[in-house]
Amino acid sequence: MVRMADRLTFTKGHGTQNDFVLVPDLDGALGLTAAHAAALADRRAGIGGDGVIRVVPADLADDPAVRAQAGAAQWFMDYRNADGSRAEMCGNGVRVFARYLVVAGLAEPGLLRLATRHGVREVIVDGDSGDITVDMGVAVRAPQPVQVSVAGREYPAVAVDLGNPHAVVLLEVPVASLDLDPPPVFSAAVFPAGVNVELVNVLGPRRLAMRVVERGVGETRSCGTGAVAAAVAAGAGQEWEVDLPGGRLFVASSPLGVRLRGPAVLVAEGTLRPEWLRGS
Amino acid sequence: MVRMADRLTFTKGHGTQNDFVLVPDLDGALGLTAAHAAALADRRAGIGGDGVIRVVPADLADDPAVRAQAGAAQWFMDYRNADGSRAEMCGNGVRVFARYLVVAGLAEPGLLRLATRHGVREVIVDGDSGDITVDMGVAVRAPQPVQVSVAGREYPAVAVDLGNPHAVVLLEVPVASLDLDPPPVFSAAVFPAGVNVELVNVLGPRRLAMRVVERGVGETRSCGTGAVAAAVAAGAGQEWEVDLPGGRLFVASSPLGVRLRGPAVLVAEGTLRPEWLRGS
Repeated sequence: MVRMADRLTFTKGHGTQNDFVLVPDLDGALGLTAAHAAALADRRAGIGGDGVIRVVPADLADDPAVRAQAGAAQWFMDYRNADGSRAEMCGNGVRVFARYLVVAGLAEPGLLRLATRHGVREVIVDGDSGDITVDMGVAVRAPQPVQVSVAGREYPAVAVDLGNPHAVVLLEVPVASLDLDPPPVFSAAVFPAGVNVELVNVLGPRRLAMRVVERGVGETRSCGTGAVAAAVAAGAGQEWEVDLPGGRLFVASSPLGVRLRGPAVLVAEGTLRPEWLRGS
Repeated sequence: MVRMADRLTFTKGHGTQNDFVLVPDLDGALGLTAAHAAALADRRAGIGGDGVIRVVPADLADDPAVRAQAGAAQWFMDYRNADGSRAEMCGNGVRVFARYLVVAGLAEPGLLRLATRHGVREVIVDGDSGDITVDMGVAVRAPQPVQVSVAGREYPAVAVDLGNPHAVVLLEVPVASLDLDPPPVFSAAVFPAGVNVELVNVLGPRRLAMRVVERGVGETRSCGTGAVAAAVAAGAGQEWEVDLPGGRLFVASSPLGVRLRGPAVLVAEGTLRPEWLRGS
């Protein structure tokens, strides 16, 4: 592995138990590679997280398309998945990123504009510990249902595109009782790049319960875009409370765009040991 | 949860990817409960680890049986599993504990005597970064084979007791190719409290490859007592190199006792956020 730095500080945080390792790189000189990110995200040999977020000024981003956002946004969320690959956006990650900026004194609470690889996102930070709301863009709901097989039974599902693909299955049977091993099955002809599957109960006029099986990962405790997809499938025009295994999110959807609201918690901050940095 | 402390520092470390959160409690006043330990070990909402190790002077241990060891040992490894329950010993954990003591300046490299709930253990720390060797006590090998079913086939296994129960299956088929879902099946009449199952290839006169399915956990990347059980089943009187998914361990067994040698790495050190401590 390329030598990263002699000293590397980090913060670990989570949003409804979707967790991240945040690494400040305020002068853009860290040189964090895919291999470094994967080593940091390793839950047993590293710190552990669903993703790694490098905190870097937007005008110092390596991607010219991100630097072009620097007039509208001061900070860039350089997001990588746990395997080191880059991702455009993460609805829980951007909330934790916003919390970090405020706690670290790099931004004031209120309305923030944050650069991502999926454009500038508006985020509202409600004080030091309140919920954080993020603009998730426009959700595209497919007009025709698709078929998904869950626990050996076929169900119609609502396909929702949020930059990443989702298939939402609205069920009568309580989602907590579902056996998701083996995972849901979908048509590779309909979803050639795979799909995130949401299993959803409508508990009331404004309330959903949900489990999610993320593509390439398996069942997770939370998924921000998944919660948005579930709310869009259940019906636009109001705010839905979405109960996930990892906590509670709120989604307000309209044809103009979707907003995701929920907690973001910083767990700990620390420093990588020099012998780990030499060995990784 | 009972209020823990306003400020809590931790170190994360691992031995062949068996990982631990170490919490110093040098004046024995921390009041770390089972719930605190489980919150720290939570991989998404906390720091994450297979176990939590409180570092406390032996004469300040809450258990009188441990305080009675204080003449022979200065430090007590107060070990808890990830669910918060207490455990007597952990072969990988005690090596990481010893590394921590040396790096933190609480002990010198060389021979350490460390208090555990399973008595005082002798540990040899080979300098600042070399391997760490731990006395694992006496292994008891059952005279008769037991039956274990792996991937739908029946095999004879060697039962080994190291304070915890093991069943070692020596296989011709490469262990890397085994499908361990569903996990190995054993007789509940023979192992009423469950058993750790080791799947082992003898690669040469001094070399083993091994996978392990730990009771109550599932497959893990390493298990110190499991590596010892595998070496005892393969044959006493020499040092075996044991290759596990998480790294390499060395086991020297004799009727007088078993020694386990291997790496111990400190990954990072840090501080829990006050808002996490208030919320947990």
